[in-house]
Amino acid sequence: MHDSQETVSSPKDAAEHMPARPITIAPESMPLMHEALTAAVVRGGGRVTEPAEAEALILADPRAAGDFPSLIGSAPNVRWVQLPYAGVETFTQHLDTSHVWTCGKGVYARPVAEHVVACALAGFRNLHAYARATSWTAQKGRNLLGASVTILGAGGITDELVALLEPFGCNITVVRRKPEPHPGAHRTVATADLDEILPDTDLLVVAWALTDRTSGRINRSTFEALPEHAWIVNVGRGAHIVTDDLVDALERGNIAGAAIDVTDPEPLPDGHPLWHLDNCLITPHVGNTLDMGRPLLAARVEQNVRLFCEPHAPDDLSHLIGLVDVAAGY
Amino acid sequence: MHDSQETVSSPKDAAEHMPARPITIAPESMPLMHEALTAAVVRGGGRVTEPAEAEALILADPRAAGDFPSLIGSAPNVRWVQLPYAGVETFTQHLDTSHVWTCGKGVYARPVAEHVVACALAGFRNLHAYARATSWTAQKGRNLLGASVTILGAGGITDELVALLEPFGCNITVVRRKPEPHPGAHRTVATADLDEILPDTDLLVVAWALTDRTSGRINRSTFEALPEHAWIVNVGRGAHIVTDDLVDALERGNIAGAAIDVTDPEPLPDGHPLWHLDNCLITPHVGNTLDMGRPLLAARVEQNVRLFCEPHAPDDLSHLIGLVDVAAGY
Repeated sequence: MHDSQETVSSPKDAAEHMPARPITIAPESMPLMHEALTAAVVRGGGRVTEPAEAEALILADPRAAGDFPSLIGSAPNVRWVQLPYAGVETFTQHLDTSHVWTCGKGVYARPVAEHVVACALAGFRNLHAYARATSWTAQKGRNLLGASVTILGAGGITDELVALLEPFGCNITVVRRKPEPHPGAHRTVATADLDEILPDTDLLVVAWALTDRTSGRINRSTFEALPEHAWIVNVGRGAHIVTDDLVDALERGNIAGAAIDVTDPEPLPDGHPLWHLDNCLITPHVGNTLDMGRPLLAARVEQNVRLFCEPHAPDDLSHLIGLVDVAAGY
Repeated sequence: MHDSQETVSSPKDAAEHMPARPITIAPESMPLMHEALTAAVVRGGGRVTEPAEAEALILADPRAAGDFPSLIGSAPNVRWVQLPYAGVETFTQHLDTSHVWTCGKGVYARPVAEHVVACALAGFRNLHAYARATSWTAQKGRNLLGASVTILGAGGITDELVALLEPFGCNITVVRRKPEPHPGAHRTVATADLDEILPDTDLLVVAWALTDRTSGRINRSTFEALPEHAWIVNVGRGAHIVTDDLVDALERGNIAGAAIDVTDPEPLPDGHPLWHLDNCLITPHVGNTLDMGRPLLAARVEQNVRLFCEPHAPDDLSHLIGLVDVAAGY
């Protein structure tokens, strides 16, 4: 059934007559998502079935982490688990080496990168303040054109952001664990050297996956090292930033402003001081909305199901897209 | 002094000993502008002098139209007038064929194009509403990625906007008087055919120069022809849009929203209904701010002064940049 055979003879014909591989899609708590993923599995050549029989599990609700143990317990033959989001931190405790895990890594990168550009332009050009104004006010604003942009992380969002910024002529620095050159970036520096480049940063974009190393990494010392005209945009996770330090920095004017699409806590509770700061733009985790993302995730699932169902698919499943590095936790 | 000549002989030496051409910069009502333009004239090879002696006049305040007759009356030898802004409508009554006129056409195009992208992204992604929110609200927004964008006008702003939108994969239609193909646009249509393409437009960008033909051209019928999810961004002049019709369209939901950097009347008075519409983002004519534009205008003036002062400059001055077509009025 799982054939990676390269030799001649009949495997291809045999494969063509093999039944489609059984895949389960659960839970059903998000009907539109379940429907879109079911269609994707069928398009990819899979057969939708119950957990007991399935060889693969497509998670159809990112909030389902709590139910995961019972779900996977009912599906003893599952070798591959497809997670629905790009970040896997809610599943970290369940990750194991007895399954192959893929996530939505890179799927949502383009819309999220677009959101970064939207927020950066809004901040630089004072749109957050003009939106709140009820009379004609003084000219304010600076150009993103030619600005120095520092991007934390070197994943899909960074790739897409670099592409969207290309005609803006920005001077782009990518910060990543190992400072291997990043395509389209003018400079790549190691995360350990982040503080050195902050004084030359006009826009700091947080696009990290959340790990122990990045949690709380953006704090008072970061804000104090940035220039006073700098903006920060967070589309990673809220916990990258020490929220109280951000409030303090915005109140003191250590930085010009922050646009945060993710918060800690999230959702940000009513009455939180960030809601009332003139230089803060809060968006409710909409870098990629469900409406934007559903067709994108479905396309990825279709692609992975097709790879999984290929008659000559390798046994190790390392050819699937968006593999989670279980040891690294993302 | 500034020699572009490639041949030998003496004209070069002669030119080098010619006195720099006398140029006047007036009025002095904007000190930073006057200072920047004075430096630019000197860098370009001109000699700054009084109106009575000058061969060229650099207008250093866009609000100076009313004083223009007395100014030009005191400068009988002036052949060339450099106007400070891209739009020349406040000078239309003074335009004549006894002077050569240049304006800031194209100078401010990049920042203004950036403002269009900022406003379009803000509108599409609901940032104007999120900026006003004081609690975590529902996901809303759509992508500019892949949207159908219709741009009215084919000047410098359009050129720069097309370039900035390139990585967004938008489907771009340029609307211009004569439907000659526009570089980077997927389609060019004549202004007369505008109404036909409105139903397929997600984003309508008004980047016209203001003329009798465009004044009031965006009105009730335009808004009714656009889809209900469409946004309009106006960076041309306020009078392109019939303001009462816009208020009405935004109230009725004929379109999703409007981002207007220019208004009619301008400045928009306190209490105007547009200030209180959820789906309207008003910016106070900041597509290009004085701070953004001053160095850009200075660079253009330096360039034109250099061309004007060239020893072998043609008598007709048609080589200057940003020539105003006196008959067309822009």
